[in-house]
Amino acid sequence: MQTEFGFLRNLRNYRNFSLIGDDCAVLPKDPENDLVVTVDMLVEDVDFRLRWATPEQIGHKALAVSLSDVAAMGGVPKWSLLSIAVPESLWNSDFPKRFYDGYCAVAERFGVEVAGGDISRSPDKFVVDSFVGGEVGRGRAILRSGARAGDLICVSGSLGGASAGLAALERGESAEFAARLLTPEPRVELGRRLFETGLVTAMIDLSDGLSGDLKHICDMSRVGASIELGSIPVDPVVDRVFSEKNDRLKCVLDGGEDFELLFSVSPDFPVARFKDEVSVIGTITANKEIMELTDGNRSFPLNPESFRHF
Amino acid sequence: MQTEFGFLRNLRNYRNFSLIGDDCAVLPKDPENDLVVTVDMLVEDVDFRLRWATPEQIGHKALAVSLSDVAAMGGVPKWSLLSIAVPESLWNSDFPKRFYDGYCAVAERFGVEVAGGDISRSPDKFVVDSFVGGEVGRGRAILRSGARAGDLICVSGSLGGASAGLAALERGESAEFAARLLTPEPRVELGRRLFETGLVTAMIDLSDGLSGDLKHICDMSRVGASIELGSIPVDPVVDRVFSEKNDRLKCVLDGGEDFELLFSVSPDFPVARFKDEVSVIGTITANKEIMELTDGNRSFPLNPESFRHF
Repeated sequence: MQTEFGFLRNLRNYRNFSLIGDDCAVLPKDPENDLVVTVDMLVEDVDFRLRWATPEQIGHKALAVSLSDVAAMGGVPKWSLLSIAVPESLWNSDFPKRFYDGYCAVAERFGVEVAGGDISRSPDKFVVDSFVGGEVGRGRAILRSGARAGDLICVSGSLGGASAGLAALERGESAEFAARLLTPEPRVELGRRLFETGLVTAMIDLSDGLSGDLKHICDMSRVGASIELGSIPVDPVVDRVFSEKNDRLKCVLDGGEDFELLFSVSPDFPVARFKDEVSVIGTITANKEIMELTDGNRSFPLNPESFRHF
Repeated sequence: MQTEFGFLRNLRNYRNFSLIGDDCAVLPKDPENDLVVTVDMLVEDVDFRLRWATPEQIGHKALAVSLSDVAAMGGVPKWSLLSIAVPESLWNSDFPKRFYDGYCAVAERFGVEVAGGDISRSPDKFVVDSFVGGEVGRGRAILRSGARAGDLICVSGSLGGASAGLAALERGESAEFAARLLTPEPRVELGRRLFETGLVTAMIDLSDGLSGDLKHICDMSRVGASIELGSIPVDPVVDRVFSEKNDRLKCVLDGGEDFELLFSVSPDFPVARFKDEVSVIGTITANKEIMELTDGNRSFPLNPESFRHF
């Protein structure tokens, strides 16, 4: 079975889609700024379940995941277009209004104008596709491809919370553990301040999980990475949901949808200035596309086993 | 049951979404140009059927309908983002590649760069959402709201072909009648030349049908319209598919998805220069939001009975 990544790689080669392959596409806007655009589609029973998430939460997440992509370029989100396909049973309920309430609350909080969209009928599943356009200084968007050997690897916030929340929901536990999964917080403001340092060499948002998204940076930058296990900030929910060490490890390394920022910085990056928000978890190496995990004196290969759409 | 239009109107009032309600949203780009953006979602078994359309045709249509929105603003399409949700059975076939072939053939023909997108799994139905960005001279986008009493009402090409094609497919007839339905031709180049006259006061693309889309112009412009039945250009397929006069009439007046341009022009518009592509079918009146159809000496109210999503 072909994977989404494999399909896109083939498509890129076959069609020479040079703009595809980062969190956002970067397009020329005006003499000062580039336009960054991104889109994320969420499908009922694949990306969310109506019995776990409120309509407001689905609306929140639909926009938040796209804002996170703009944050990962160092950009400022400006406007969005929203497409939804709605089954008749949901259409004839308060679902659409509550969904828009959730979407628009996030839009207002981040100063994003909802500029249009499309509404279609769906035979059975609710589908939402959220486009966001933003701005970033011309030629200065932070790509996945700029990491250099010797750079520090950093991550914002803490990891594993969304994945642990999903595990809790799947076990039938209460939704209290699932806030990070259901209402992720896009790191837009932090992304801007990181951009302004001028010292971030590559950045991605953590949607596929640490191992998977670090691999994207390594592949695109043609570098390797060494991660220090003890430095990875772990979401406290992970320990509350998982008792086995291996489960916790897998959750932190491979769990997707935390929507934190993973990025590399020049060694002169002012770590202290960001100490409450950012952890240094490793270094970029010259071992092209090889990732390793160190734990004290031991070292293991780090392979992405992140969530695959296919 | 609430209609899509009703829901959007409520949303617009409730949220003050001032940008929503034209073929494209118009956003500031640079000192010379505005950005026009639009999105169209097509859902399997609602907007197309896999047994009637090839994957290439679905790809063609997905982009063509969005290009048609840009054409209706007088804009030049520049780039697109494409989201698809794919059921596993289709994913493991040549469907995705053939779909992209169709999409990309249209993109190349219109000089549109495919800049990114998203791929998701779908439980059962194929869903495609196509987002297009384009440019139009700053402050010069042709809106639905600019028609004035005394303007001529014009339409490009001929009407009813897509709707007649759908009727033929529904009857089990061969796909030869359905080319306009399955592979609509966006009037981008004509839209540009119309824009350049500077005499087009309002424009929309015919997706909902003549009566429905004319009503959008009348509502937004706070004018009325008088259409001369004998002047409406009828697609030859209509007469081949329908033998009853009433069926033909309904198809021409209410049939959606022709993706021709419907527009109003100042009386000094150079009709002769466009005579092979454009028909004058009526006039804009001061009878606010009242539309009538004249046939010789008789006159009838013209009410939209166009396709409703809900």
